[in-house]
Amino acid sequence: MNFRSFSSAPLRSSAPSLRRLPRTIRNILNSPVPSAVDPPFANVRGWVRHIRKHKHIAFVTITDGTSIEPLQVVSTPERIKGSLFIGSSVSLTGTLARSHGAGQPVELQEKEITVLGHCDLTEYPLQKKHQLPTYTRELPHLRPRTEVILSVLRLRDKATRAFNEYFESQEFTYVHPPILTSNDCEGAGEAFRVTTDVLLSRGQNPQTADPKDIPPTDTLSFPVPEYPEHFDRPTYLTVSSQLHLEALSAALSRVYTISPTFRAERSKTHRHLSEFSMLEAEIAFCDDLEDIMSVVERSIKDVFRTLRTHAFPEVGFFRDFLSTEVAGSEHDLLRMMDDLSSPGVRWARMTHAEAVKELQQYQDRHPGSFVYPVGPRLPLQSEHEKWLAGNLIDGPVFITDYPASLKPFYMRENDRGRLHWTEGEPTVACFDLLVPRVGELVGGSLREERLDRLLQAMRVRNMRTEDMQWYLDLRRFGTFPHGGFGMGFERFISWVTGLENIRDCVPFPRSIGKIAL
Amino acid sequence: MNFRSFSSAPLRSSAPSLRRLPRTIRNILNSPVPSAVDPPFANVRGWVRHIRKHKHIAFVTITDGTSIEPLQVVSTPERIKGSLFIGSSVSLTGTLARSHGAGQPVELQEKEITVLGHCDLTEYPLQKKHQLPTYTRELPHLRPRTEVILSVLRLRDKATRAFNEYFESQEFTYVHPPILTSNDCEGAGEAFRVTTDVLLSRGQNPQTADPKDIPPTDTLSFPVPEYPEHFDRPTYLTVSSQLHLEALSAALSRVYTISPTFRAERSKTHRHLSEFSMLEAEIAFCDDLEDIMSVVERSIKDVFRTLRTHAFPEVGFFRDFLSTEVAGSEHDLLRMMDDLSSPGVRWARMTHAEAVKELQQYQDRHPGSFVYPVGPRLPLQSEHEKWLAGNLIDGPVFITDYPASLKPFYMRENDRGRLHWTEGEPTVACFDLLVPRVGELVGGSLREERLDRLLQAMRVRNMRTEDMQWYLDLRRFGTFPHGGFGMGFERFISWVTGLENIRDCVPFPRSIGKIAL
Repeated sequence: MNFRSFSSAPLRSSAPSLRRLPRTIRNILNSPVPSAVDPPFANVRGWVRHIRKHKHIAFVTITDGTSIEPLQVVSTPERIKGSLFIGSSVSLTGTLARSHGAGQPVELQEKEITVLGHCDLTEYPLQKKHQLPTYTRELPHLRPRTEVILSVLRLRDKATRAFNEYFESQEFTYVHPPILTSNDCEGAGEAFRVTTDVLLSRGQNPQTADPKDIPPTDTLSFPVPEYPEHFDRPTYLTVSSQLHLEALSAALSRVYTISPTFRAERSKTHRHLSEFSMLEAEIAFCDDLEDIMSVVERSIKDVFRTLRTHAFPEVGFFRDFLSTEVAGSEHDLLRMMDDLSSPGVRWARMTHAEAVKELQQYQDRHPGSFVYPVGPRLPLQSEHEKWLAGNLIDGPVFITDYPASLKPFYMRENDRGRLHWTEGEPTVACFDLLVPRVGELVGGSLREERLDRLLQAMRVRNMRTEDMQWYLDLRRFGTFPHGGFGMGFERFISWVTGLENIRDCVPFPRSIGKIAL
Repeated sequence: MNFRSFSSAPLRSSAPSLRRLPRTIRNILNSPVPSAVDPPFANVRGWVRHIRKHKHIAFVTITDGTSIEPLQVVSTPERIKGSLFIGSSVSLTGTLARSHGAGQPVELQEKEITVLGHCDLTEYPLQKKHQLPTYTRELPHLRPRTEVILSVLRLRDKATRAFNEYFESQEFTYVHPPILTSNDCEGAGEAFRVTTDVLLSRGQNPQTADPKDIPPTDTLSFPVPEYPEHFDRPTYLTVSSQLHLEALSAALSRVYTISPTFRAERSKTHRHLSEFSMLEAEIAFCDDLEDIMSVVERSIKDVFRTLRTHAFPEVGFFRDFLSTEVAGSEHDLLRMMDDLSSPGVRWARMTHAEAVKELQQYQDRHPGSFVYPVGPRLPLQSEHEKWLAGNLIDGPVFITDYPASLKPFYMRENDRGRLHWTEGEPTVACFDLLVPRVGELVGGSLREERLDRLLQAMRVRNMRTEDMQWYLDLRRFGTFPHGGFGMGFERFISWVTGLENIRDCVPFPRSIGKIAL
C-alpha cells in the first residue's frame, strides 16, 4: 500500500484536508440559542419563501428544505429592494440572535446579501403560498418546494429510517430483489414488458430480425434465442418481490426490502399508481399466521412511536394541514398514532367469514348501502373494506382466512376442521390489514411449504410448472414453514398524512396515460 | 376512536398478546456464555450445514443465515441416523453449554430433534462445501445458501445501513426517485423500453391498434395518444436518477438514494450488469468540486470504519476466502480498510491532463503496455484506469477535470485560464474515482447551473430542448450551485470483498442473454 506515493505538488497543497458541508438551517434552528453578549456569525444558503416589509424593518423567511420551519432573517426594506424575491436562491451572512417572534428560537440579522440565482416572478408558477394539488401535480419538478410535498418527502425519509430500525432490531437482513424478472405468474396481464427500441423497431419478428443484432455465440454462454430478446426469455417488471424473497429467506431466515413495484393497471383512481414502493418481508420458521400479523402490528406501532418523537414537525404539519384544508375533518393524526401504538392495545382480528356476516347484517338493516354484492365466496370490494375499518371497527383490522379460491396459489391451506374452514371450501392462512380511509394497507400469508399441496394448488389454477421449478426446489430441498407480507408504502404515507390522493404521497407519480419527466 | 369495540369472543381470547419471533442463532451466539450449573434450555431452527460423526458422538452444525458462524449441536450417531442430512431444515431443543471446541463460545446439547423439511440428497445440487462460482451462478435460487453468497448478502445489508447512517449524519434526505422515466437523453440506445404484452402484440402501429384499447377520454385528463402507449409518451427504465435528484435537491438541498438502475448494454463482461444498484447523491449550495469529492471520500471512509467494527465476520470471511481461493493473492482487506480510512490519509487527486501525461510517460518507457491509445482528448479506457489506481497510485485516486467533449451536457464548465483548462479546449468540473482491481467506482461533477451555458452545451450536442424544459426550469427559478455523484453499489461490494465477478456481488444477476427466475 503506497497510495500516498503520488505527490504531484499542485494536487496536495491546494486542499490539504477534506472539506465539510456548509451549515444547514436545521442545524442552526437546533443549536443552542445564542448569547446576546457575543452573537455568533453565520452564513446561510437557501431559497426565499416569504417576504414581509414594514416601514423600517423587513422579515424574510429562508428555507433550504432540511427542516419544514424556515429561518427568519431580519433586514430593512431598502437593503432587500430589487434583490430578494420569492423563489430566489441566496447566501446570507449575519449574526444569530434570540428571536423576538413567536415560535422561533433564533433569527439571522443579516449584514450581507448575495443573490445566487434569480427567480423570474413574471413566469414563476409557484408564487402563491397555497396552491391546489390539482395545480401542483402538473408541476412535478417544482412541487417538492411546496410545503405539502416537502413535508411528504421528509416524512417518507423518516418513515423509511424508522422501518429500517425496526427490522434491524428484529434481525432481518435488508435485501435488493430484482426489478427485472422472467416470472409473470402473479401479474398476468398486469405486468409491464421490457424490451429495447432496437428490438421494438424490428417488431420482434424472427423473419424481420437483422442477424447482426443477434449477439455472436462465441461471446455468450446461452443458445441463440428464437428472436432477439435482450434476455434469453420474455422479461417483465416485478409486480411483487415475494417469490424472490422466499428464495432469500431460505438462506437468511428473515429478509425485507422497500423496493419499487409495478402494475400496468388500466384503472385510474386516487388509490393506484403504475409505479409504487412496497415494503415486503419474509420470515422463516413461522408456522402460525399470528406470527406474521404480530410483526406487521409491532412494526407499524414502533414506527408510529418513532415518528411521534422524531418527526414531530412533519406529523404536526399534517395534523394542522388536515384540520384547516379538509372541511369538517376531525382527524387528529397525533392522537391516532398515540392511541394505536399504546401498549395495551391489540388491533382487531376477524375472519373473512365473520366480516361477511357483519357486512350482510348491516346490509339487511340498511339496504342499498353497498354497490357490490357480499358473500362468503366473494372478494371484499374497496367499499366493504372501508366500511369494515372505517365504520365497524373505526381502526385497523386484520381480515383473515379467505376462501382459497379468492387468493393466489402460494398461500398455505388451513387444516380441515378448524374454525377457519368455511362451508366446505378450503380457506388459506392469509390476512389483509384494512385501515380507515385507505382500505387495504398490508396483505400477507403463510406460504404453502408442502410440495404436494403446492403442486395441487397450481394444478387447480391451470398454472404451468415448467418455469416454476426453482420455486418448487425450495420445497424439495429443506422446505421450511414460513410466511410474509407486503405493505404499500405510499398507502402508509396516505394513512399517516391524511392525504387522500396517492399521487401526492410520492415524489414523481406515474399512472396510466401520465408520465412526466 | 373505538377500534377496540369489535369484541367477537374467539378473536380476542385465542391470542391475547402479540407474539415474538423465535430466537435466532445469532442471538444465541451473542448471548452470555451459559453457566455450567444450570444450563438453559433453547429451541433452534435452521438448516443442517455439516455433519461429523465419531464413534459415540456426533457434531452437527446448524445455520439460519442470521450469522455466518453456524451453531454446533452435539448429538450421537444413533440419534441422528436416518433423520439429519445436509440441507434438511430442523427444529432442535436442548441445553446450551460452554463449547469445548475452538472458536465457538456455546454449543447445543440436543434432547429432541424434529425434522421440518427433508432434503433429497440424490438430487440436492449443493452438497459439497465448496463449489465453483460458475456452477453456483446457474443455481441463483439456491446459491444464497453458500457461504460466499450468504456473506455477500449480509455484507450488502451492513454496507447499506452504514451508508444510510453516514448520509443521515450529514443531514441528507433519503428519496425514492422513479424507475420509469420519459427521459432517455443520457441513455440513448442503452435504455430499456417499457411496454405491455397487449401493446406489443399489436405492433404498436396506429393502423392496427384496436380502438377498444385506447382508454375512453372521459376518464382520462390527457389527449388520446397517437398510438396506445400505456403512458402519454415513450417510457424507459432509468439509467441514472441524477436529473430527478437535481429537482429534489432544489427543494431539500441534500438528497440521496440507493436505487435500481438499468443499462441495455450488449457487452457481457465481469464488470457489467443489466440491472444494478446505484448510490446517488445531489448536494445544493456547493460550488467547489472538492466539496463533492470530500463527501465521497468521507462516506466511504466512514463505511469502512463501520464495517470494520460491525461486520467483522463478513469482512473477515472475505479476507480468509481471498487468501485461500485466489492463488497468490496478498490482498488483506482488513488492512486495506484500516489504511484507507486512517485519519491522516487523504486519497490522491490528479487532473485528466496529468493522468494522461503519466500514462504517456509509462507507455514511452514500456511500449505496447496499452491496447487503446492515450491522449489529452481521448477517454480513459478500463486498462488505463486500472493502471492508474492499481499501479501508479496503488490506491483510490480521483481523476478530475476531463475535456468537456468527453462528458455529458450537464457538467459545469470550468472557468477559462484556470489550471484545469487544457490545450484551449474547455474542461468540466468532474471526477471519476478509480480504485484498484475494480476501476471506476464513482463518477461525479458540479452541475451547470447557468442557464445560458447549459443551453449552449445542449446545442453543441444537438440535443432537443423540448422535453427538457423542466430541467431548464430549475435554472430559471432560483438556480443554485450544486453537484453530485453516483457510485456503483455492486462495484463497491466487489472492491471490499475481492470478488472479481460482479455477478457474485448481487443476489440475482441480470445480464444480456441471461435472466433466470
